[in-house]
Amino acid sequence: MNEQPTRADRFSFGLWTVGWRAADPFGEATRPALDPVEAVHRLAELGAYGVTFHDDDLIPFGADDTERDRHIARFTRALADTGLVVPMATTNLFTHPVFRDGGLTSNDRSVRRYALRKVMRNMDLAAELGAQTYVLWGGREGSETDAAKDVAAALDRYREGIDTLAQYSIDQGYGLKLALEPKPNEPRGDIFLPTIGHALGFISTLRHHEIVGLNPEVGHEQMAGLNFVHGVGQALWQGKLFHLDLNGQKGPRYDQDLIFGHGDLLSAFFLVDLLENGGYEGPRHFDYKPLRTEDSDGVWASAAANMRSYLLLRERARAFRADPEVRDALAASRVPELSVPTLSPGETPADLRADTSAFEDFDPDKAAERGYGFVRLSQLAVEHAIGAR
Amino acid sequence: MNEQPTRADRFSFGLWTVGWRAADPFGEATRPALDPVEAVHRLAELGAYGVTFHDDDLIPFGADDTERDRHIARFTRALADTGLVVPMATTNLFTHPVFRDGGLTSNDRSVRRYALRKVMRNMDLAAELGAQTYVLWGGREGSETDAAKDVAAALDRYREGIDTLAQYSIDQGYGLKLALEPKPNEPRGDIFLPTIGHALGFISTLRHHEIVGLNPEVGHEQMAGLNFVHGVGQALWQGKLFHLDLNGQKGPRYDQDLIFGHGDLLSAFFLVDLLENGGYEGPRHFDYKPLRTEDSDGVWASAAANMRSYLLLRERARAFRADPEVRDALAASRVPELSVPTLSPGETPADLRADTSAFEDFDPDKAAERGYGFVRLSQLAVEHAIGAR
Amino acid sequence: MNEQPTRADRFSFGLWTVGWRAADPFGEATRPALDPVEAVHRLAELGAYGVTFHDDDLIPFGADDTERDRHIARFTRALADTGLVVPMATTNLFTHPVFRDGGLTSNDRSVRRYALRKVMRNMDLAAELGAQTYVLWGGREGSETDAAKDVAAALDRYREGIDTLAQYSIDQGYGLKLALEPKPNEPRGDIFLPTIGHALGFISTLRHHEIVGLNPEVGHEQMAGLNFVHGVGQALWQGKLFHLDLNGQKGPRYDQDLIFGHGDLLSAFFLVDLLENGGYEGPRHFDYKPLRTEDSDGVWASAAANMRSYLLLRERARAFRADPEVRDALAASRVPELSVPTLSPGETPADLRADTSAFEDFDPDKAAERGYGFVRLSQLAVEHAIGAR
Amino acid sequence: MNEQPTRADRFSFGLWTVGWRAADPFGEATRPALDPVEAVHRLAELGAYGVTFHDDDLIPFGADDTERDRHIARFTRALADTGLVVPMATTNLFTHPVFRDGGLTSNDRSVRRYALRKVMRNMDLAAELGAQTYVLWGGREGSETDAAKDVAAALDRYREGIDTLAQYSIDQGYGLKLALEPKPNEPRGDIFLPTIGHALGFISTLRHHEIVGLNPEVGHEQMAGLNFVHGVGQALWQGKLFHLDLNGQKGPRYDQDLIFGHGDLLSAFFLVDLLENGGYEGPRHFDYKPLRTEDSDGVWASAAANMRSYLLLRERARAFRADPEVRDALAASRVPELSVPTLSPGETPADLRADTSAFEDFDPDKAAERGYGFVRLSQLAVEHAIGAR
Repeated sequence: MNEQPTRADRFSFGLWTVGWRAADPFGEATRPALDPVEAVHRLAELGAYGVTFHDDDLIPFGADDTERDRHIARFTRALADTGLVVPMATTNLFTHPVFRDGGLTSNDRSVRRYALRKVMRNMDLAAELGAQTYVLWGGREGSETDAAKDVAAALDRYREGIDTLAQYSIDQGYGLKLALEPKPNEPRGDIFLPTIGHALGFISTLRHHEIVGLNPEVGHEQMAGLNFVHGVGQALWQGKLFHLDLNGQKGPRYDQDLIFGHGDLLSAFFLVDLLENGGYEGPRHFDYKPLRTEDSDGVWASAAANMRSYLLLRERARAFRADPEVRDALAASRVPELSVPTLSPGETPADLRADTSAFEDFDPDKAAERGYGFVRLSQLAVEHAIGAR
Repeated sequence: MNEQPTRADRFSFGLWTVGWRAADPFGEATRPALDPVEAVHRLAELGAYGVTFHDDDLIPFGADDTERDRHIARFTRALADTGLVVPMATTNLFTHPVFRDGGLTSNDRSVRRYALRKVMRNMDLAAELGAQTYVLWGGREGSETDAAKDVAAALDRYREGIDTLAQYSIDQGYGLKLALEPKPNEPRGDIFLPTIGHALGFISTLRHHEIVGLNPEVGHEQMAGLNFVHGVGQALWQGKLFHLDLNGQKGPRYDQDLIFGHGDLLSAFFLVDLLENGGYEGPRHFDYKPLRTEDSDGVWASAAANMRSYLLLRERARAFRADPEVRDALAASRVPELSVPTLSPGETPADLRADTSAFEDFDPDKAAERGYGFVRLSQLAVEHAIGAR
Repeated sequence: MNEQPTRADRFSFGLWTVGWRAADPFGEATRPALDPVEAVHRLAELGAYGVTFHDDDLIPFGADDTERDRHIARFTRALADTGLVVPMATTNLFTHPVFRDGGLTSNDRSVRRYALRKVMRNMDLAAELGAQTYVLWGGREGSETDAAKDVAAALDRYREGIDTLAQYSIDQGYGLKLALEPKPNEPRGDIFLPTIGHALGFISTLRHHEIVGLNPEVGHEQMAGLNFVHGVGQALWQGKLFHLDLNGQKGPRYDQDLIFGHGDLLSAFFLVDLLENGGYEGPRHFDYKPLRTEDSDGVWASAAANMRSYLLLRERARAFRADPEVRDALAASRVPELSVPTLSPGETPADLRADTSAFEDFDPDKAAERGYGFVRLSQLAVEHAIGAR
Repeated sequence: MNEQPTRADRFSFGLWTVGWRAADPFGEATRPALDPVEAVHRLAELGAYGVTFHDDDLIPFGADDTERDRHIARFTRALADTGLVVPMATTNLFTHPVFRDGGLTSNDRSVRRYALRKVMRNMDLAAELGAQTYVLWGGREGSETDAAKDVAAALDRYREGIDTLAQYSIDQGYGLKLALEPKPNEPRGDIFLPTIGHALGFISTLRHHEIVGLNPEVGHEQMAGLNFVHGVGQALWQGKLFHLDLNGQKGPRYDQDLIFGHGDLLSAFFLVDLLENGGYEGPRHFDYKPLRTEDSDGVWASAAANMRSYLLLRERARAFRADPEVRDALAASRVPELSVPTLSPGETPADLRADTSAFEDFDPDKAAERGYGFVRLSQLAVEHAIGAR
């Protein structure tokens, strides 16, 4: 295969990924700060097409306007020099102590107002840089004790916040779509909108629900032991997969942000299969952390590894779909039959009730004799995943 | 306290709970079958107000009409004799081998049609017995390998199925509301609509979404490590808490169906607090399994224990809310401030952007100095939960 | 590769695996009973070299001596006809209701005595059939409430039981080694000796600890979110890997018993690498369940799939170890340096304390500059696992 | 009750607990540094009897001897002024980047030697301050990819390290016992000796195993979904519970270090019951983190809350054991019968085999009829835990 990524592959990275200095709850930073301009150049060389950022990744928190402009100008120039685009931006509402009880759902109203303004300010920049998607990860929106929050009030405020920001995008003509990023816990004990599902439910209550969707992350769903492929499948089905974060995780534990493919490998195979065949057309965005054990060589090796894993799995997913034996196995498992409506065209509940072939004359014992052949399908998938066919 | 449950407490039990014969994946039944009529009488004596059932709990699978009528007549008489009501009923779409790939989303269309008919038939009985809620637990709707299902097709069929059943309820004038019961896994490797959230998202796509809500179960959310109080809070907030299943679970593992309060005790305390104060008016329904180690004395002891745990925690939740020190702590934590809208009345995004007090003149470092007092609140809750105040 | 398993590969299966009738906590059996004689023949045809059994797999519980002898004779003949061996046997101390509080640690002393006798009886048969290992899975030894067990008393009885059985093996000259199989939960809420580690600790207290070791199972450790490769590595290091159970699992949830490789695929790759290179010489034993969705074609397909997955991963593990770039990366990561003792030959703690190069003159900041190169190693492993190198 | 802790209660705290500045993986510190001298005074006022520390908690990493002596002198004076003792000390082998691949099992031998020296240096101080226990938490000993470590080599080095330190304690006449602290993951992807059990197994291989035991932590075992009471019970049973860390955790997720009792409350009740009745005589040591949302008032409130939760649960555990109905229920559940040996005095395996009452004349169906009454016991425990009896 041609294993070198190209712009057409639409790979993007957060500045905070390759720029992570590797401080963790028990350890100091192991790497020096990375200049965003260098990040842009290096990512471009490796074959990425896009870069994303939190406001504070680019412009240090508290910088004055002059400093801010200078940072933006340098970054813009790097983009121009490399051709990298900014498909997405987001806001840091979690690092500064002021956000310790959250941004949009802090019990402190002045914090909530400040948070909205901080988002709006970076939406201005995102629009200026041509982003299409604006991500909101509410990592600090939550609690450690159920006594600390009236859930209904918290969701009221969350909705008010998202409604306000959607209105702002519309009022300003930014064309930015908002993408909520669910996570079950960490850094809060329990985070509101903990999964893809909870966010989908919440979105259905929004005033401008049509421009609000999701930015699901592999590891976040897997921290809840959930099937990420099913979750992304539901988001796609509801027209809400606006963006996504690719990485790796080893089940329920702390947020590992491993390289894509270095966690649940089989799920990564099926995810690539779904993204390539399921109608997702957005960036393949990596939100991972280079291992703390690494120096800067390891950082760039890890960036390349994410893309290479994706390309290799894409190749395997294509081979899987193209294999006549797989097609035969899918048919034997009656997978295509699931796309046939259960009711006949025009059939009403009353019609169904009158159809004796459906119930009175249906022999469940007889129908139960035939197996579904899922073992064969599953083994074919494993063999394709490991390049054995 | 008055620890004896009364009808006014609205406690209900599934026939399949006290009637569970205690076969498990590694062991045979340890208890004899329980006559539903005896279950009704015993539950009534213990203070329950309602009983619920799957079709096959009441009428053995495959019974002919005569036998069916006889079972219904005996059950109806027991209800009349005891005054117990049937607030909810549901369908068994999981025991018979014909459902091994699910009911509404089986790859086999004839199974899907049969499943719909099986549900419709028991909806007829549910309506006849005066039920308000019809629960659908899709425990077999899912897969063990992502190759086995086109997720979009599965959700199309799931939607078609629920739409059809909602239409049926409307067409028949049954007034039954449908309540979906999410579960992440077991007996399938991954179940569709794995959490409260995923079901809320799905419901938003339904034709008759207004009569479809949720029947969340304590243990099912906790199997995904999710905060059940937050989940129920969101369901209530979206107007979708139609019914619920109370029990206990010890985190991510097999579905334990412990007695209410015998799992995460602190969460049970907060759940009772939410149900009593959050506007839920439905039954307090127990969906648990008496431990396999028990004989029939233990079965009835366990039924009583569920209600007693609830009543004791209700007493503690009331004391918690009535304690002046708790009120003081809530105020100190600014919990009531979360109910104050973030925007002022009539304030637009542009107005907010123009308010320099919100951003330009806001000092985040200064605002970050003050703590939130959640430790004090949390400890007050723990002390109330353990009856120490 | 030569993908056809041979006797030299030492693959073995439990009778209860291919013979699983696929009843689960929510569903009835979907497959007919399988004659052990047929199982032996089919497994032999597929390339297995061994078959294992619980007493009750072979001889129905409660059979009289005549029936028992008949079952044994038929089985022995099938072994002779096929050349299959019986490397291991074990006891069913979990299906019958009498074991509902466990066998060796039941609160009921008469049950404990009965359990010991049931084990001894099947050890007699195991020895007769030439088994080297006798497995004890204490799936019912545990509790759902901590009030039900004095842990010290339970472990006293557990030790007494294992000591007695080890003594029996010695007294009878059976040469059987005992292998304990840990599991964290299911079917009990919490099982004693929940992990490889707890069993290793327990074994160190036994009278005949030299003939007691482990039979760890992939899924059982992964149900606790533990790294199975690390666990097996420790068991090997302690000389206690007497046998093992290969299968697949998707993290903390119910015991899935998936086909080997169909769970955490990357861990399966590293496990094969460890088994092939780490000095394990016992059988490659599969303890899995063919999916409940399958008919008997799926059963045999699944048996073949286990062996094929192992062989494919073995091929990949060999290529991984043979790749010069991997060797280079291992050296760059200083993996071989971990085999060099930390102290020099003859060095005492006092010597180390006097070595100023170790501390006073050691510059931690300088030493911390160099990364470990684990990203490169990890990516090489992933690429080998998916056959991309 | 007398809810004010006294020295006789033997409560101790790590300097790093109340001194935690509340930086987390996504956020900056929210609290100023706390002077260890102030910590000692405040803890003494609150009723603690002891304080514990990592070397770097007391003496900033890299301090020269003069600075070091000054810090020690101030601390010693505070201890003398307050009467607080130092029952335990430990080493920070995780914060500085030099330890990013671990201390005792780093692939870099010079790091391993440096780590041993760092431990020895603080053992000198621990002995000088009168500590009895020296804790070793190997939080960085592990890996994110199985390719990075030869497990056998890692365990060889781990054993060499612990053997060396034990020898040092003996050679120096320090009388320090070593206590290993297991943890499954975080900050490493997988940590060696992940549970109480794995550490017990490892200890059995040590040269000076008699002076090496455990320092288990509530949350660390619960991160693996394991029953902490069972784990501590096994450690006590093996004579290895040298010390322990009390805190709270909500199942498998990041390490929460909640206040004791604020996680799994029912398990906390049973733990206190075990500690008070199971023969543990060491300190009740809290290793928790005051919530990041709190200011310094919250810090001291949280310290007090830990002790108060313990005392309240102790009171409930005593009432549980004193309740005649509980005693009756224990007897009915045959809990005391588990303390009766399974074999009669002098009975051999051959004797047991000859006892027809144990097997041939034992009727398992009959014996299985009687339930174990665990529901009643469990409910009594819940009611005592919540102060309802």
